[in-house]
Amino acid sequence: MAAARTLLRHNPLLWLLLFVPVLFIAKALAPDAHTMLFVMSVLAVVPLAALLSHATESVAAKTGDAVGGLLNATLGNLTELVIALTALQAGQYMLVKASVAGAIVTNSLFMLGASFLLGGLKHHVQDFNRIGARLQASLLVLATIALLVPSTVAEPGLASSSAFTQTLSLGLSVMLILAYGLGMLFSLKTHPELFASAEHGSGDEAPWPIRVALILLAVVTVLVALVSEVFVESVQEAAAAFSMTPAFVGFIVVALVSGAAEMASAFAGARRNRLDLSVGIALGSASQIALFVAPVLVLLIYVLGPTPMDLQFWPGAVVMMLIATLIAVLVTNSGRSTWFVGVLVLMVYVIFAMTLYLLPPVSNDRAA
Amino acid sequence: MAAARTLLRHNPLLWLLLFVPVLFIAKALAPDAHTMLFVMSVLAVVPLAALLSHATESVAAKTGDAVGGLLNATLGNLTELVIALTALQAGQYMLVKASVAGAIVTNSLFMLGASFLLGGLKHHVQDFNRIGARLQASLLVLATIALLVPSTVAEPGLASSSAFTQTLSLGLSVMLILAYGLGMLFSLKTHPELFASAEHGSGDEAPWPIRVALILLAVVTVLVALVSEVFVESVQEAAAAFSMTPAFVGFIVVALVSGAAEMASAFAGARRNRLDLSVGIALGSASQIALFVAPVLVLLIYVLGPTPMDLQFWPGAVVMMLIATLIAVLVTNSGRSTWFVGVLVLMVYVIFAMTLYLLPPVSNDRAA
Amino acid sequence: MAAARTLLRHNPLLWLLLFVPVLFIAKALAPDAHTMLFVMSVLAVVPLAALLSHATESVAAKTGDAVGGLLNATLGNLTELVIALTALQAGQYMLVKASVAGAIVTNSLFMLGASFLLGGLKHHVQDFNRIGARLQASLLVLATIALLVPSTVAEPGLASSSAFTQTLSLGLSVMLILAYGLGMLFSLKTHPELFASAEHGSGDEAPWPIRVALILLAVVTVLVALVSEVFVESVQEAAAAFSMTPAFVGFIVVALVSGAAEMASAFAGARRNRLDLSVGIALGSASQIALFVAPVLVLLIYVLGPTPMDLQFWPGAVVMMLIATLIAVLVTNSGRSTWFVGVLVLMVYVIFAMTLYLLPPVSNDRAA
Repeated sequence: MAAARTLLRHNPLLWLLLFVPVLFIAKALAPDAHTMLFVMSVLAVVPLAALLSHATESVAAKTGDAVGGLLNATLGNLTELVIALTALQAGQYMLVKASVAGAIVTNSLFMLGASFLLGGLKHHVQDFNRIGARLQASLLVLATIALLVPSTVAEPGLASSSAFTQTLSLGLSVMLILAYGLGMLFSLKTHPELFASAEHGSGDEAPWPIRVALILLAVVTVLVALVSEVFVESVQEAAAAFSMTPAFVGFIVVALVSGAAEMASAFAGARRNRLDLSVGIALGSASQIALFVAPVLVLLIYVLGPTPMDLQFWPGAVVMMLIATLIAVLVTNSGRSTWFVGVLVLMVYVIFAMTLYLLPPVSNDRAA
Repeated sequence: MAAARTLLRHNPLLWLLLFVPVLFIAKALAPDAHTMLFVMSVLAVVPLAALLSHATESVAAKTGDAVGGLLNATLGNLTELVIALTALQAGQYMLVKASVAGAIVTNSLFMLGASFLLGGLKHHVQDFNRIGARLQASLLVLATIALLVPSTVAEPGLASSSAFTQTLSLGLSVMLILAYGLGMLFSLKTHPELFASAEHGSGDEAPWPIRVALILLAVVTVLVALVSEVFVESVQEAAAAFSMTPAFVGFIVVALVSGAAEMASAFAGARRNRLDLSVGIALGSASQIALFVAPVLVLLIYVLGPTPMDLQFWPGAVVMMLIATLIAVLVTNSGRSTWFVGVLVLMVYVIFAMTLYLLPPVSNDRAA
Repeated sequence: MAAARTLLRHNPLLWLLLFVPVLFIAKALAPDAHTMLFVMSVLAVVPLAALLSHATESVAAKTGDAVGGLLNATLGNLTELVIALTALQAGQYMLVKASVAGAIVTNSLFMLGASFLLGGLKHHVQDFNRIGARLQASLLVLATIALLVPSTVAEPGLASSSAFTQTLSLGLSVMLILAYGLGMLFSLKTHPELFASAEHGSGDEAPWPIRVALILLAVVTVLVALVSEVFVESVQEAAAAFSMTPAFVGFIVVALVSGAAEMASAFAGARRNRLDLSVGIALGSASQIALFVAPVLVLLIYVLGPTPMDLQFWPGAVVMMLIATLIAVLVTNSGRSTWFVGVLVLMVYVIFAMTLYLLPPVSNDRAA
């Protein structure tokens, strides 16, 4: 209980945990109040994601770098994975694809840009280890190319094209996971000295005892799954109530909600002039989604699901991912940043958000 | 008068001022000699643009950095603004869009490339302050993304799409102007030390007294407006006479004419091994057009005009702007140049010019 | 004969020369055994390409840098040129275009990536002269832009469009050859000191006497032409037998076969920690194909051929060339490499190969 109290003091976000029981009660009493349920599920997911991330790090801290890295990759985006699987079970393939693309774009533009801006407002010029940033950015470039090619060469109207996209997506998924694994081998085993000052994870709070962490991991994952179900059920109608387009919800809202906990860590790091941490979290999350979550979803759905999911995205989403990735490459190339770099990166994000918000519904139907 | 004589000696371009009265006389005597009027209006605009630019700098020199920077941004591309407004009044939206895109491409490829080549033919290797260049190039990248997104996600055939593009263009315009303002805040107020050796404007001639400058500013702006009117009226028929496509005229001819004065300064700087100056003028002009002139046009036309103008460009123009911007980023990244870098950049410009010159008329109708 | 024996000992590839007579005998006995003839012609081309390349270097070594460079450019890709001319005579325009695009992609991704990987498995971190690499990469970017623009702005369905593409292709071809020549002038005459440690060609074996080299050059060129004829005749049916798509054959198989000899040199250089050599061969070959072989083909076919060939490529091929070129720019920017950089570059190549292998036949018909 002492640990819990310390935790609450350091993470005011956790007070939001109160919304978890409130949500389930509200759901039982008023199952059709979609807008209210949507808002509550958003508020409830945020602290759960924070707990999940801290529990994962505690387990990882106990197991040594290599296994810890693997655990972090597997569990670090558990929130995203669970939300996505819930949405897929509800047949919302478009929402899932939009949220994968949105998570990549949000992490590499919003999280990175806001870190640069918040850090730059406090510190005149900030330096960071650009080798770590470059590794993550290179992995992102690879993933974006993998997502770009099927969308570019496939001919929309053809039956053969759909089988082609499906087979290609399976092959690409296996390759992306392999690239992710080799990237870990490179950064943890063969060339760790290049990544000297880059630290992943928050590293600030004492890790929990392993048993506590494992139990929390199990309990919180179940809770996230239950909350996600409400979220996925209510999101479309709530979006309509706020006059948000489905593309905007998938790309922006879901991505911001499921990344909230990591953003808190990244921004805190930037304020304390530890930009390595912020850049590592932002680009690391983006590349985990692109090279681990998305391909695992494709393979899981192929094995489990009724209809397979492919990696063919709406062209607009591909363009946005491509731009976000290139911006990440350009911006991390020099290894230093100021507030204005943050402004520029955030503005690109605002351009995308504005475009998706205004997108007329016809395009929207295909926006995934 | 002494000032005027010194000016003429330093700026042989100003002898072209004789074409201003000649043009108006010719217009009165032979209103249908479009080709002749076109050639004369081109020759008359060049010295007026030079005067306008020098008068602006004289006013800016008197007012201190911050206001001076703002004045430079507002008035520095007055020629482009006046020509564009005249063309918009004549309903030539396509010409205006082509000339905006063309100015960005011409400044960041032709002006930059020719500066590198002319400087490199005289000096073995030239260095320049790459931080200033990188700021302008980053602003250009932002602007290009802003112009790319509406053209990418909009569906051409839909009515809803047109309203979407219009609203989006207004939002993007406000954002680009904001980015431009923040860029000035960054380079003039918060981080001026990064831009140490970069100087904008020619800085070589003594500034004029403020009263002379202000009167000249007013008189010359009116003259530019009158000359532009003849230019815009005659350009299409003259183009046909020279068998130039409308796309070529808008993209290449208008851009070269209205940038002639700045090009003279940039090339002179490069020859004197002051490449900071050349790069600053070339990329600074390009980003002023993209982040100030184009959005101001959109907002002005929205308030004043009968039909609003949007920021949706012909895909070919977007591709060219994107390539020009990326080339500017790549080429200024190292902070040094040789003649061959200039050749490569100029060749990209020649590829674009050749393509637009040969473009068959069907595509041409949409080329804006 | 002593030279021949030494050569055989250093180049075990040359044992494959036995397949040259075997191929012609097989062709006479079983003219319809396409699959067997295809495999044999592949095996016979590889050692001939190696001989051709060594003979060219021997001649170049005798003539001094400038003429030698020119000879290397003209004859260095003789294999590619002869195969392409044979295919064009057989009317296989699509195969030729695919193999040009494929050679650019294969050299700048597969040859470069495999060199980084093979070198990196032996050496922890490898450095190379990035100025030489950057020159070749810049030339490649120029060539890719030249190939991108006609494909982007042309409207597929129009008759005027075809004439436009044809005229534009001729203009672009002249310009690319000019750029290639100026690049040689820059690297050999005006700024050779920048390229200090970069050496082109293998430079390891003693050059042959000039008479031997010239005779070999003539004899081997004729042999390559004869073998290519069998190769081009059998490739499509053999591809069907191996269930390879025509796009895959043109892009991947032809490119790998005709570059085999250069690859052997590049990989050997990387293992001996002479990465300058590997990068020079990989990017040098790619830019020779793009700025010399392809434009020479266009001009030759315009003068000789019945139907002219243009530089308009299948959009998928353009995207692949563009990505390959940008990867080459990004990867050579830092001047150092590790095994993981090689893995990433190779994975992009595998993505392309996988896509082309799986491409359904409808798209395939246009894939050139």
